[in-house]
Amino acid sequence: MALAYLGSKKPTAAAIMSSPPQLLLTQDDLKKIAAYKAVEFVESGMVLGLGTGSTAKHAIDRIGELLSQKKLTNIIGIPTSTQTHEQALGLGIPLSDLDTHPVLDLAIDGADEVDPDMNLVKGRGGSLLREKMIEGCCKKFVVIVDESKLVDYIGGSGLALPVEIVPFCWKFTAMKLESMFMEAGCVAKLRVENGNGKAYVTDNGNYIVDLYLKKDIGDLRAAGDAILRLAGVVEHGMFIDMATTLIVAGELGVTVRNKC
Amino acid sequence: MALAYLGSKKPTAAAIMSSPPQLLLTQDDLKKIAAYKAVEFVESGMVLGLGTGSTAKHAIDRIGELLSQKKLTNIIGIPTSTQTHEQALGLGIPLSDLDTHPVLDLAIDGADEVDPDMNLVKGRGGSLLREKMIEGCCKKFVVIVDESKLVDYIGGSGLALPVEIVPFCWKFTAMKLESMFMEAGCVAKLRVENGNGKAYVTDNGNYIVDLYLKKDIGDLRAAGDAILRLAGVVEHGMFIDMATTLIVAGELGVTVRNKC
Repeated sequence: MALAYLGSKKPTAAAIMSSPPQLLLTQDDLKKIAAYKAVEFVESGMVLGLGTGSTAKHAIDRIGELLSQKKLTNIIGIPTSTQTHEQALGLGIPLSDLDTHPVLDLAIDGADEVDPDMNLVKGRGGSLLREKMIEGCCKKFVVIVDESKLVDYIGGSGLALPVEIVPFCWKFTAMKLESMFMEAGCVAKLRVENGNGKAYVTDNGNYIVDLYLKKDIGDLRAAGDAILRLAGVVEHGMFIDMATTLIVAGELGVTVRNKC
Repeated sequence: MALAYLGSKKPTAAAIMSSPPQLLLTQDDLKKIAAYKAVEFVESGMVLGLGTGSTAKHAIDRIGELLSQKKLTNIIGIPTSTQTHEQALGLGIPLSDLDTHPVLDLAIDGADEVDPDMNLVKGRGGSLLREKMIEGCCKKFVVIVDESKLVDYIGGSGLALPVEIVPFCWKFTAMKLESMFMEAGCVAKLRVENGNGKAYVTDNGNYIVDLYLKKDIGDLRAAGDAILRLAGVVEHGMFIDMATTLIVAGELGVTVRNKC
């Protein structure tokens, strides 16, 4: 396993991954290390799910770089958001969609939280639905995070567990979600855009309610089903038993863990 | 229990409900009989869920009539579609929404199928999501149908079991739904508008995939959860264990059945 450092002059990612450890790595350096490690799983000819967010962005940049160097060929990317679509287009990565390629070889994406069983929270970037559609039909799903994303339990960061809902009577749906997890001290907040305070609208024209939890909600699959049974909910940000490989970059190195 | 007939001159609904049985009742007469019977459950001061479709329309007309005659007062209606909203507005029924009234006293609505356990198929009219949101938080949910809607099992009419899905990669979601119920001989079809062949779009900006089943799908709650777990699905048209009262109008009379 490679160990990482950041010297006084910012090294290339390849240098980061092969050098002895020191301090001073930024969170973005760690994201890049994890992302580059994940791209080692990519082989020519693969259909690839392309994640969304600051960590996935590094992986997509790297894939574009390897394609331009002809070190990878015949890749087809399936982007998980309009944002990733734009990035991949700019890099010249050939793109397609799930309708045409309903089975993917590999997906690479970041996560907002990872629990000890490799269950994830995703969607703080707003693309949870498309991510779940695409990453749910991959033979291999590689999750890349810096070590700050590791939590003891889902919701354990104290940050948002996002739920995508229809705009119709959103207050009602938010109230129902909050009541559902009352015992975990849940507070439900409509996500708003920075600056103007208007409701954030997803790629699918929906709203997002962010759940903030004070305690473990217990059986995740049961909780997920209960959320989905609530009419008005489109999808939740728990990715339960979906990740097959987890790559964590920390100041002391990179760890790669496969799901048993 | 009132019995129904249709004479040579079309009688009023009140006359239909109190007269001896004969043949010649049209399906719309039966719908009206069931609807008028349901409105007998409405009391002044109630917050009411107002259904959508040809049967519910009769109930809403009747509520408007009783309001204008001052036989009902202080009613608040929560419409389940933009179509019902317009109808109720035209009748002068005061309206509100779930955000303001999250608990309803009573809802009245039709159904496309009713099985022996009073489980329903709804959504052939396209409003399944709002109907489920509203009818899921009623103290009493009265379902009104003519006898042609009674089936041995959900899907048993051979007609559509509707599923509301996001437009993104709808073919993929339709394919997944069809595979899910392959053993029941499922065929999934995107609902299109009459005339122009374009995808039908719901009040929530989504598509509808209609599932056609050849056999019973077994445990409805398990099937419902499996459908909802499919990312891309917004809601399905099975209303499981929601109806509290069923009113069926047939040529031999009206039956009223309460859920045990």
